[in-house]
Amino acid sequence: MTITVVGVGLISGSFALAMKEKGFAKKVIGVSRTEASLQKALELGIIDEALPLAEAVKQSDLIYVAIPVDVTIPIMKQIMDLVNDKQVVADAGSTKYALCRSLEDHPMRKRFVATHPMWGTEYSGPEAAVKGAFEGRACVICDKEKSDTDAVTLVENIYKALGMHIVYMDSESHDTHAAYVSHISHITSFALANTVLEKEREEDAIFELAGGGFESTVRLAKSNPAMWAPIFMQNRENVLDVLNEHISQLRKFKASLEKENLEYLTELMENANKIKRILK
Amino acid sequence: MTITVVGVGLISGSFALAMKEKGFAKKVIGVSRTEASLQKALELGIIDEALPLAEAVKQSDLIYVAIPVDVTIPIMKQIMDLVNDKQVVADAGSTKYALCRSLEDHPMRKRFVATHPMWGTEYSGPEAAVKGAFEGRACVICDKEKSDTDAVTLVENIYKALGMHIVYMDSESHDTHAAYVSHISHITSFALANTVLEKEREEDAIFELAGGGFESTVRLAKSNPAMWAPIFMQNRENVLDVLNEHISQLRKFKASLEKENLEYLTELMENANKIKRILK
Repeated sequence: MTITVVGVGLISGSFALAMKEKGFAKKVIGVSRTEASLQKALELGIIDEALPLAEAVKQSDLIYVAIPVDVTIPIMKQIMDLVNDKQVVADAGSTKYALCRSLEDHPMRKRFVATHPMWGTEYSGPEAAVKGAFEGRACVICDKEKSDTDAVTLVENIYKALGMHIVYMDSESHDTHAAYVSHISHITSFALANTVLEKEREEDAIFELAGGGFESTVRLAKSNPAMWAPIFMQNRENVLDVLNEHISQLRKFKASLEKENLEYLTELMENANKIKRILK
Repeated sequence: MTITVVGVGLISGSFALAMKEKGFAKKVIGVSRTEASLQKALELGIIDEALPLAEAVKQSDLIYVAIPVDVTIPIMKQIMDLVNDKQVVADAGSTKYALCRSLEDHPMRKRFVATHPMWGTEYSGPEAAVKGAFEGRACVICDKEKSDTDAVTLVENIYKALGMHIVYMDSESHDTHAAYVSHISHITSFALANTVLEKEREEDAIFELAGGGFESTVRLAKSNPAMWAPIFMQNRENVLDVLNEHISQLRKFKASLEKENLEYLTELMENANKIKRILK
């Protein structure tokens, strides 16, 4: 089949590479507002052709949208206005509720499948696209019953071929869970980077002394603000909720240190150790 | 030479393995209060013999102490009371100021070298010891001028043979920098685990949805409280200082979301991106 990727970055680029590798896509068309990204994606063999949106949609069996979640909403409306009842549209955004709500009354809603493959890195742009992405991770499909069965089946088969397992959820629950297990990690990492940059004025010391622990906790702070700021904004109620909890958890550590209460400090850490039970 | 490792866990065990592999140690003696750990270390070939402290010290050219930093202080006093001016003693603790101060007036102070190899994992015990540890990381040597030159040279040569590069610092500065680039990462990770365990009551959701981002930010929350609580306590002033800054950085994210201020939110994240420049 012919597919269009809207956006030619980390997710769309990796998706395009995988679609070719797994034999799903004979042709991949790329759509982007950024001419340089399209050129780069052509050079890297991620896409076969760059076309304007309307032309690309016309030629495609599947349209896969992976762009910042704020621009996804108006672009998705344009795409849905163009598709027929044989085509399938899917997105890969990290928030699902606002998008699903915006498409609720669209006459072609059933051709759209809301998905969130739980994979990513802190890098962005076509150069960040990698082969073998997605493998072994979960992919969430939201509000499945609002999509045509054939559309859901196609999307499921693709993700399964990429090595993902499917988890079903309504879009509202998705956003709550995503705030807990993904969005808050990004906020803490951004804030940790700012903390260390503020306190540690000797950059050499960061460079020299930062062990594996610091690098792994701060890794997500390298993530692209253009992608993440709209995610936090769209999911702000859930993110604020979990952020408040996080600040209150940090205050407990603070209190235990201020009071030199070794027992309480140990108790907080032992509770945190329970995460071992859940993460394999 | 014959060496004694006091403690047979992640650091001391990995050190013992490396000392044999690099041909420094003909014999490794293990000292521990925990009989089961000694047995395990013997089984795993980490140590050749288990002996009581005084007997072990008597036989050894180098005594390497890697136990929780609170117990290090009294044990180190015992060791220093036993050594002669040909023997060398070093520790591997994550805090240095309290220990160095406690040894300040000891008549054998010059046989002691205060070190902090910036390597570790979230695991503990003899089973956590690995070959090839330390490689490529920095090792801090503190208050070098308070140790005999031959003692410092031996310790430097060992760490260099293990693939580490040496950074020199006074013990007080070490603790400040360590709070910034290591201790705060552990606190945020412990607190993040507690946050998610508190908010996300559906453990299946954590298990299913947690992508690489969550795993890397929360990894350190698996660390051993018996090791880390004393570190935070000994370094509490520095840790509190950076923890206060971290809470205030998180409050900025909170404010930007509460006010739906996309520009401010983006600015905070762009500032955090500067960490890329430092961490290659």
